[in-house]
Amino acid sequence: MTDAVKIAIAGLGTVGAGTIRLLTEQADLLTRRCGRALSVTSVSARSRDRDRGVDLSGFQWFDDPAEMAARADADIVVELIGGEDGPALEVCQAAIAAGRSVVTANKALIAHHGTALAAAAEKAGVSLGFEAAVAGGIPIIKALREGLAGNRVERVYGILNGTCNYILTTMRETGRDFDGILADAQEMGYAEADPSFDVDGIDAAHKLAILTSVAFGCELDFAGVHVEGIRHVTAADIAFADELGYRIKLLGIAQRRDNGVEQRVHPCMVRADAPIAHVEGVFNAVVAEGDFVGTTVYEGRGAGAGPTASAVAADIIDIARGVRIPAFAVASADLSPARTIPMSQHSGAYYVRLMVVDKPGVIAGVTAVLRDENVSMESMIQRARDPNSPVPVVITTHETRESGMMQALAAIGALDTVVEPPRMIRIESLKK
Amino acid sequence: MTDAVKIAIAGLGTVGAGTIRLLTEQADLLTRRCGRALSVTSVSARSRDRDRGVDLSGFQWFDDPAEMAARADADIVVELIGGEDGPALEVCQAAIAAGRSVVTANKALIAHHGTALAAAAEKAGVSLGFEAAVAGGIPIIKALREGLAGNRVERVYGILNGTCNYILTTMRETGRDFDGILADAQEMGYAEADPSFDVDGIDAAHKLAILTSVAFGCELDFAGVHVEGIRHVTAADIAFADELGYRIKLLGIAQRRDNGVEQRVHPCMVRADAPIAHVEGVFNAVVAEGDFVGTTVYEGRGAGAGPTASAVAADIIDIARGVRIPAFAVASADLSPARTIPMSQHSGAYYVRLMVVDKPGVIAGVTAVLRDENVSMESMIQRARDPNSPVPVVITTHETRESGMMQALAAIGALDTVVEPPRMIRIESLKK
Repeated sequence: MTDAVKIAIAGLGTVGAGTIRLLTEQADLLTRRCGRALSVTSVSARSRDRDRGVDLSGFQWFDDPAEMAARADADIVVELIGGEDGPALEVCQAAIAAGRSVVTANKALIAHHGTALAAAAEKAGVSLGFEAAVAGGIPIIKALREGLAGNRVERVYGILNGTCNYILTTMRETGRDFDGILADAQEMGYAEADPSFDVDGIDAAHKLAILTSVAFGCELDFAGVHVEGIRHVTAADIAFADELGYRIKLLGIAQRRDNGVEQRVHPCMVRADAPIAHVEGVFNAVVAEGDFVGTTVYEGRGAGAGPTASAVAADIIDIARGVRIPAFAVASADLSPARTIPMSQHSGAYYVRLMVVDKPGVIAGVTAVLRDENVSMESMIQRARDPNSPVPVVITTHETRESGMMQALAAIGALDTVVEPPRMIRIESLKK
Repeated sequence: MTDAVKIAIAGLGTVGAGTIRLLTEQADLLTRRCGRALSVTSVSARSRDRDRGVDLSGFQWFDDPAEMAARADADIVVELIGGEDGPALEVCQAAIAAGRSVVTANKALIAHHGTALAAAAEKAGVSLGFEAAVAGGIPIIKALREGLAGNRVERVYGILNGTCNYILTTMRETGRDFDGILADAQEMGYAEADPSFDVDGIDAAHKLAILTSVAFGCELDFAGVHVEGIRHVTAADIAFADELGYRIKLLGIAQRRDNGVEQRVHPCMVRADAPIAHVEGVFNAVVAEGDFVGTTVYEGRGAGAGPTASAVAADIIDIARGVRIPAFAVASADLSPARTIPMSQHSGAYYVRLMVVDKPGVIAGVTAVLRDENVSMESMIQRARDPNSPVPVVITTHETRESGMMQALAAIGALDTVVEPPRMIRIESLKK
């Protein structure tokens, strides 16, 4: 048997402790699967004394994670500190500079620096693994990079943030509004004290940028991702969605077009029979559509110590088994420049909810604006009647250009009879 | 750039032609992804003249596939002939003996000879790939062998036969009985003229045996798989399932127990909110449950030229990229002997449908038998009343031992008041 693979772990939060637990509890199994032992040699974290439920006494302790990355007795450095810059980036750079492979669960870091880190790793002859950065335990990076490598990917999309999916699921089940559910989720630990990374779509956008790069073989372009969160989704929208046969999901969508790739994160209405309409609660799911394979769906837990440690372990095992595949599916030199298409060029169908005063001629005014912007209506619902207070009007459109839709929404919002800013949710057509 | 990888293809049916089409159409993409070109050099099939919609003029033709496997100018031999023995086996053995890697879509061959072929390939220093043998385009072998390799798998199960799933789905949607739907499916090409491999569960059993070996790191034991097909499922059972909140699916299930692994293929009642209850028509889905990752679900098309070619290509790409992982996740010498638990030792819940004469005391007789065999009833439905002809009685049980259930069914079937053999479908509890 070959020598043990030596592992240094930077960051000992839930995922770091979970990774140590996995590597310890499964040691025999992993030795059989890798043909060699996996051995944690060194660890680094902010506090040495905190009880993490795992025994650290057998590992060399480093106060400075970057020093550990550079000097530890290790073949692989696992970065679990988090954050798009700072110590996390230093750890990865130091490890690669010292000729060690890097495994990370850090989506922000990879979304911002993945292209450069992959090039540096390649040059140094080491691996860069980030399976754990996208969709937790679901082996979706491997599926795209290897399992579907015979396909030209047409579209990849998914429910990439468990917090948002939990909130939207609970809103639908209870009929309650966003703020109350968020507060509950925070109390139960399903949402952070500062929830903006999750509920404003940034976390999903990090993951989408990574999926885009792996699926389409292009450089990362996080800045190009169009991002909207779920704060403006109301119980009323969810009820109307139900009535129209839709579910509302926060999706990250990367789609090939003739002139580039769309990258967008926003709430979507998807038909109730779409492949991911029934993915509920904290689960994540990714759908990859290839030209030969058709539609494939991958579902599992998108966060948590166990699933994330499972993905970290998969990358470690690949390295131990001697697997060497470029991080983003093609060699860095062969990555194409990112060609992200601006959102204004998107075409799609739309759901719009207006609050209007209930008097004759209101609808005529709204439809005149839509006509002027060349937006074709598919359906209109005005169920409530109340001469004394605003009533909702819901409109769905046929496929139309985003830019025209935005102008129409601005013009509709400026009408005297429309008493709140119009609410828009895109309708996404997802085939089986 | 390294030399091209040279490929010989034995068998030019739908999948063979699809594989040639994929390798031709995606040539540039594949070269980028592999860092080298993939080049078909040789082909072999029964008839040279048949029009397959692909141009064979650039390839060397062999009448004898085994001769091609031994003598062609090729690094990889792709076996797409089919059949558990005969030419398919000869091709694989000849290729390995000649030091060439083997890629196959042949589940019958792998289910019967996979352990021996993997050992031979390992000894010869070549690869054996069979991603296409299980669940078509879904990269489930790779997910189990690599993506989830940090986990002890607790259970893996799935909808592994698209023909059966199509028939069961259509029975449910139309309320029609098995025979009529099968005839229609045959006419539409969704079922073979001789459908027994599919509808009797043998095809699913082949795939399950392979999944078991990869998931649990044990030798193949196809003979140990308990197999039942879907011929005895009636429209009445599907209607009762609906009423009870279940769907009927043909599942292949491999489950770790203290004393070994259960391997079984049979119709199951699964709760309508189970992860795979909504997988309909010709789609396949596999659920893998790991101790760290939890439940993960993989869904896609389980058959057809495109999806199968996608999986064949994934294996070819792995080989071209220099990936060398043991075919069944651990080295052949480390595979444990198969310890398949006999079905009589299974414990589970059961659905039983009886046709009884409608007179007082009938239910008392049935329940007395269940009591004597220690089977605990969960529910009983006798809705129809008709003194002149038999009426259905449906019973569901709490978890009980298969052996006791079988004795109870035999005793119930022997009652004077029970006019048809009892129909039994196992109820499977599937967590999220």
